[in-house]
Amino acid sequence: MAPFLSRRDLQFQLYEVLDTASLPSRPRFAEHSREVYDDVLNLAYNVADRYFANHAREADLNEPHVEGGKVKLVPAAAEAMKAFREAGFFSAHADEELGGLQLPNVVAQAMHAHFKAANIGTSSYPFLTIGNANLQRAFASPEQQQKYMLPLLEGRWFGTMALSEPHAGSGLADITTTATPREDGTYAITGTKMWISAGEHELSENIIHLVLARIKGAPAGVKGISLFIVPRYRVNEDGSIGQGAEKQSNNVVLAGLNHKMGYRGTTNTLLNFGEGGETVGELIGEPGRGLQYMFHMMNGARIGVGMGAVMLGYAGYLASLEYARERRQGRHAGNKDPQSEPVRIIEHADVRRLLLRQKSIVEGGLALGLYAAHLEDELDTGPEEAREDTALLLDLLTPIVKSWPSKYSQEALSDAIQVMGGAGYTRDAPVEMYYRDNRLNPIHEGTEGIQGNDLLGRKVTQAGGRGLNVLLGRIQADLKASQGLEGLDEIRAALQTAVAQSSAALQTILGQAPDLGPDLFLANANSALEMLGHTVIGWMWLRQAAAAAHQLPTARGDDADFYRGKLQAARFFAAHELPKVKAYADLLASADRTTFEMQDTWF
Amino acid sequence: MAPFLSRRDLQFQLYEVLDTASLPSRPRFAEHSREVYDDVLNLAYNVADRYFANHAREADLNEPHVEGGKVKLVPAAAEAMKAFREAGFFSAHADEELGGLQLPNVVAQAMHAHFKAANIGTSSYPFLTIGNANLQRAFASPEQQQKYMLPLLEGRWFGTMALSEPHAGSGLADITTTATPREDGTYAITGTKMWISAGEHELSENIIHLVLARIKGAPAGVKGISLFIVPRYRVNEDGSIGQGAEKQSNNVVLAGLNHKMGYRGTTNTLLNFGEGGETVGELIGEPGRGLQYMFHMMNGARIGVGMGAVMLGYAGYLASLEYARERRQGRHAGNKDPQSEPVRIIEHADVRRLLLRQKSIVEGGLALGLYAAHLEDELDTGPEEAREDTALLLDLLTPIVKSWPSKYSQEALSDAIQVMGGAGYTRDAPVEMYYRDNRLNPIHEGTEGIQGNDLLGRKVTQAGGRGLNVLLGRIQADLKASQGLEGLDEIRAALQTAVAQSSAALQTILGQAPDLGPDLFLANANSALEMLGHTVIGWMWLRQAAAAAHQLPTARGDDADFYRGKLQAARFFAAHELPKVKAYADLLASADRTTFEMQDTWF
Repeated sequence: MAPFLSRRDLQFQLYEVLDTASLPSRPRFAEHSREVYDDVLNLAYNVADRYFANHAREADLNEPHVEGGKVKLVPAAAEAMKAFREAGFFSAHADEELGGLQLPNVVAQAMHAHFKAANIGTSSYPFLTIGNANLQRAFASPEQQQKYMLPLLEGRWFGTMALSEPHAGSGLADITTTATPREDGTYAITGTKMWISAGEHELSENIIHLVLARIKGAPAGVKGISLFIVPRYRVNEDGSIGQGAEKQSNNVVLAGLNHKMGYRGTTNTLLNFGEGGETVGELIGEPGRGLQYMFHMMNGARIGVGMGAVMLGYAGYLASLEYARERRQGRHAGNKDPQSEPVRIIEHADVRRLLLRQKSIVEGGLALGLYAAHLEDELDTGPEEAREDTALLLDLLTPIVKSWPSKYSQEALSDAIQVMGGAGYTRDAPVEMYYRDNRLNPIHEGTEGIQGNDLLGRKVTQAGGRGLNVLLGRIQADLKASQGLEGLDEIRAALQTAVAQSSAALQTILGQAPDLGPDLFLANANSALEMLGHTVIGWMWLRQAAAAAHQLPTARGDDADFYRGKLQAARFFAAHELPKVKAYADLLASADRTTFEMQDTWF
Repeated sequence: MAPFLSRRDLQFQLYEVLDTASLPSRPRFAEHSREVYDDVLNLAYNVADRYFANHAREADLNEPHVEGGKVKLVPAAAEAMKAFREAGFFSAHADEELGGLQLPNVVAQAMHAHFKAANIGTSSYPFLTIGNANLQRAFASPEQQQKYMLPLLEGRWFGTMALSEPHAGSGLADITTTATPREDGTYAITGTKMWISAGEHELSENIIHLVLARIKGAPAGVKGISLFIVPRYRVNEDGSIGQGAEKQSNNVVLAGLNHKMGYRGTTNTLLNFGEGGETVGELIGEPGRGLQYMFHMMNGARIGVGMGAVMLGYAGYLASLEYARERRQGRHAGNKDPQSEPVRIIEHADVRRLLLRQKSIVEGGLALGLYAAHLEDELDTGPEEAREDTALLLDLLTPIVKSWPSKYSQEALSDAIQVMGGAGYTRDAPVEMYYRDNRLNPIHEGTEGIQGNDLLGRKVTQAGGRGLNVLLGRIQADLKASQGLEGLDEIRAALQTAVAQSSAALQTILGQAPDLGPDLFLANANSALEMLGHTVIGWMWLRQAAAAAHQLPTARGDDADFYRGKLQAARFFAAHELPKVKAYADLLASADRTTFEMQDTWF
């Protein structure tokens, strides 16, 4: 069976494209070294291979179901959680004082990539738990952290984020879950939450829900939303919850499981709060700032979703590559001798097109996801004077990091199925599962529509457009730095064209914005997302191509092949994908009214 | 629940875009009238609604499995076959002397569209049976037709096409199934066939396999392939097969069922011929012409696959449209009042984009599928002098009719899921099923790669490029005829540009062909398929827009809205989709070498 990720590429991205090896020179990472990072990644590979990859299909075929009042998962999921916990991965990113390794974000992201590639469904549980802990670390009181966060970092308790309600998914402003103050300063939570991943299961001793709700009497809209810690089982002052029958329910009741096309290992639930008794929650921070706090977790979650999409696409690419190298079928067009042996299908240019397209998507996406994690590190531990720019750039890139791989990994996975033909369409191969799994990614943690509006309606104009200028400046710097490198001419030219088209289109539409009004201005936000998405991935390919071009002259054997592959994939993206930017740029610049003017009754 | 197709659009396509109402003036259709056609379509709607739509999800959730040595399907599938048979649909297209209605292809295609939309999995059984009968009608002897074809037209027996083998799917030249002459002129068939849809089931009294095999001693390659009629149960000279235990097995043995991502209602089988006894087959026509005969069925099957893709996309579009009209979420960007009621999501321009894109794809695809069926009618019953042109045009369009909807309905269905968000990703809605179902369409009956090679490598150069000239001529004629119609300027301009780009790119690449050699020439065949595919759909939209523009001035109420929707969808395709042609045209014209030069070891 094909490997679920390329360890060679991960090394390339971390140490040859990004300068991860230099991080130990920063005080926070002083105990680290490249060897430490490599050990973490090796351990991640082994745990992912042994405890996650082993039950990806099993979990897909046996989706969570209720048995005797409890949600049953395949037993291997619990084994995986145990191995993940014992490896210390729940707290690998956390401060040493909290028992963590203080791993840089970029290494933590690379570590998590293994579990996403090996088994996206099971990987959600720690992913959500760690996000929950991060939010508490940022905004919860020291007492709350002691009580609710530490057990998450130990992997004893798991976490969720509970935002959506049946009538309010993308439109969070309209949530109605209510928090009524209790005498002891806590709140009684009542309401129903929908689409809650990992909302109910028996994998952990307790589940800590982070719940958006309105304190009674709060104003309508987002300003009335607060954030609460709501445990599944009540927690005593000393942090204990008892065992077995001692555990006291907090009346968060499973009202239903959603049956998904993919991503089946992750339970997805409808939860009633305050059913059959009081659900007690604690307010995090100040009232009315719930959404703001939640977006701290959400931004990280969006990068995580993008990385999940990348890794599903990557696993599919590797599976189809292995197949293409083994399967024999047909002959070269120029060969008319039916007695000759059929060729391996990788010899057909159109199969190589499908493989190169996948490679350009998943390796481009991986470069972007790790670049975003690198920016998080720069924000946390980089030079003070650059942090404001870094923050704006990360803000600008986040909708792209989330949405581009979600959309294009799906196309890559379609290409993977296509390479494998009928075999790829059956359960005998993993690609049809990845394809079903990944289709969730353009939906959850903010749909594509929301990402487009966020990008065009907020991020490109934020701080007077400074984030966009930072982006364009960094691209120009990389273009300049790559001048004269061998074999990069077409790649550089295609990127320059795409950048020019994108920035001209943005200038045009932004200039018209006051006349268009907000609705027409945003009507083509998707074009902005596509245009900038492809341009940014083109940039990521320039960076990879430059790193490869630096190494190629002295590289030998497999290494030389690896760098040639990078250069060819960069050329592919430049020749086959970047030219698509123009159509989106033209559409955006024209402030096309077609969708805006369409009427319901005309459909 | 949303309807599975738009009867209004079907009427528009048949009677306003195409001139189907004039067909009864031809001798073969002299007994017909528009009322006859409408009655057929009404009956199809009712049967599809009652007997097919009812178990689409049930069949998806309960895929075929072996029980007591027999393949079990959901019982509703047998009910559906009974209703289909009793309605006379198995022979609706057939000659009156064979008990048929002599329906024109375009009406038969519209009739079948209902079943594909309502339940693609169950619709396969009659689809394959009718294709099998058509092949026999064209090439089998009168005795064979009497014995094997008539029971298919009665719907008592069902048919398959058995081409692929485990080692030979796309590469049919390498099949090894063997036919050994027997003393009585029949053949003993031995070998294994893979991916045989409807290969085993209990829906019919017998199954007639059309099997590609090599007569012992035949030359290697396609010239050694012959075609055989192979029944599941032996057929007596008088056409009888007995009942129950009297039935004599022909030793076609089910070796396995394939477990597919979608399209689950259709059994898909691995079959061993000649296992445990002799499998007897009859040769059709002449030895060595098997593939040629099979392509008679295959060309029809390719149009049918394209139509299946259209109808899956159409059903998904209608489901997401209904949802978008009901679901309330969010507010207009300009509305900052959180107390105001959330709007129906169809009010968001980006949701309308997703809906308009679907509409432009599925209605464009439907226009093309019915246009191809119309060409089949012109070939059968149209003016003699035009038939050669018609045949070349149909040949040229066939790979597009097959592949364009297969690919773009998948994108439309992804858009349908996106409109519905999380709900679209669950089994509570049908769109995730359509999405899984349709992903088969770019694979079976010739992959996209095969369609691209067929188009660029054969069809555009066939008869000295005359097919291409016919296409360009017809587009120009429609452009000319639409001059001066109100509201068509942008649509006409976008099509003119796409046509100019496409034909220039083809001219360039064809001019270079001798220098490039066949492999490099075909390396960008996919770009030709994309480029011409979008251009042809743009043409189909011009034809629809012109028909709508003719009617709009005198139309009222729902009719006027319908025509405005057609015009807006045509504008959408012109503004959002046709500009994508340029990138493909440029790539093709440049004879890009990126995929051609990529090496296995570089991946």
